[in-house]
Amino acid sequence: MNEADFIAALRSLATAPAARGLLDDAAVLGDLVFTHDMIVEGVHFLPGDPPEDVAWKLAAVNLSDLAAKGAEPVGCLLGYTLGSPDWNAAFITGLRDVLDTYAMPLLGGDTVKANGPRSFGLTAIGRASNPPSRSGAKPSDSLYVTGVIGRAGIGLNLSRWGGQGAEIQAYRRPQPRIAEGRALAPLVHAMMDVSDGLLIDASRMAEASGLAVTIDLDAVPTEGDPIAAVTAGDDYELLFAAPEAPPSVPATRIGHFDAGSGLTLLRSGVPIPLPASLGWEHGA
Amino acid sequence: MNEADFIAALRSLATAPAARGLLDDAAVLGDLVFTHDMIVEGVHFLPGDPPEDVAWKLAAVNLSDLAAKGAEPVGCLLGYTLGSPDWNAAFITGLRDVLDTYAMPLLGGDTVKANGPRSFGLTAIGRASNPPSRSGAKPSDSLYVTGVIGRAGIGLNLSRWGGQGAEIQAYRRPQPRIAEGRALAPLVHAMMDVSDGLLIDASRMAEASGLAVTIDLDAVPTEGDPIAAVTAGDDYELLFAAPEAPPSVPATRIGHFDAGSGLTLLRSGVPIPLPASLGWEHGA
Repeated sequence: MNEADFIAALRSLATAPAARGLLDDAAVLGDLVFTHDMIVEGVHFLPGDPPEDVAWKLAAVNLSDLAAKGAEPVGCLLGYTLGSPDWNAAFITGLRDVLDTYAMPLLGGDTVKANGPRSFGLTAIGRASNPPSRSGAKPSDSLYVTGVIGRAGIGLNLSRWGGQGAEIQAYRRPQPRIAEGRALAPLVHAMMDVSDGLLIDASRMAEASGLAVTIDLDAVPTEGDPIAAVTAGDDYELLFAAPEAPPSVPATRIGHFDAGSGLTLLRSGVPIPLPASLGWEHGA
Repeated sequence: MNEADFIAALRSLATAPAARGLLDDAAVLGDLVFTHDMIVEGVHFLPGDPPEDVAWKLAAVNLSDLAAKGAEPVGCLLGYTLGSPDWNAAFITGLRDVLDTYAMPLLGGDTVKANGPRSFGLTAIGRASNPPSRSGAKPSDSLYVTGVIGRAGIGLNLSRWGGQGAEIQAYRRPQPRIAEGRALAPLVHAMMDVSDGLLIDASRMAEASGLAVTIDLDAVPTEGDPIAAVTAGDDYELLFAAPEAPPSVPATRIGHFDAGSGLTLLRSGVPIPLPASLGWEHGA
């Protein structure tokens, strides 16, 4: 049973409507929204990354899922693998920073010891009155994205190879779009965060909605090589389907939905071959 | 910053009333109850343990925290580190088994890859109208425990040294007392589960309640050496403070609370020296 089979098997256990078939960014139970993401040393963060930033990122990736549901943070539970005394202290500093910034109090959790690479998990709980799903896009909708795509991917490369640049902060300290998500939620037909790459995430929204999506590469606000930008992850911007531009949140129209299926990528108005990888493929 | 300092620092981030100061088995938000426990290969389970049992135990330790709050399971989020295909398949079998047994659907989560010992986390969500805390024991209360104490400790030793015996199942497949917890919750002043050892857990209830507790070792239903039994963990029975024996749930009166502080252990009616370790000391 490989990862794809494993996730399919998990779906068969996720029978409650609240689970949204494990196809959404978060589970929805009444007016509460739940998400749980893990990060692993050597996989999701580098052993030399500052512990303050690891704490920030752990909370931020979960906050971004709340943002995608238009949710206000309510609290979180932390699963923490102990490190050296200095590492622990620095982690607390970063955790305090991110929880204060997003007004998300710690509600509980667990601390454990482990030998080898360490793992951290965080469950974020939010409140939302009518959270949009990924699957609500309609055939005449436009596709919008907030912010600039590709900065975190550049930051990952810089931090991996010992470079310098403001993009490192974009990678290590993503700023989940909580306020924007809350403003957008009542106005959109579908919403998700861009965590695995713009192309793969847009494809998922189209697939969940039973539609085709066309993206105009020239319209996407990118930094660096455009193809690298739209296939890199970790930007934590919001991607949404709506009939028209939302009045209050800066966002860029980058494409549209149609009846059908699949992703079409345009450059200078002409379809171009899709890159071999649309982004990060991974778990639920 | 060592583990105790780290947990103290976490408490300073846990300012919401829902967190119950990180001193309880679970966080309480409206009528919902949340708990998150992790288990780590080589620490909380042995690399050779059957994956079905690892899945069972991961869910059961969290279900036991719900039981201690008198909560009905609502759902859970899983943080899973992928293993070999066979291991993954067997884990799903055990997970299906425990989630079906306790009617706790999977709502979401995350799957990750890691090199080295693997970690799993589970967040359980339950519903309870008036969840008892650890801190509500009163000076005239008696202390009760469900079931028999010490079987899981024997099972751990048997499984560690390759022995055989029914106690191995008690260690690997604990049966959280969900039904008993729901029946007891309206009748008790304080309740918690016995996860780290009867003596240490009873001490924590007394300390949280600002009281002294006396335990009559001869009254405790134990299997094996009584001192080993009351200092071993993993039994997942319920420990509660109440003015009288609850009518509907089988439980044994094993002691009582008084004004003051500390733990007194009686044998043949006479105080005896406390064992060097009262149970497992660990995280929040």
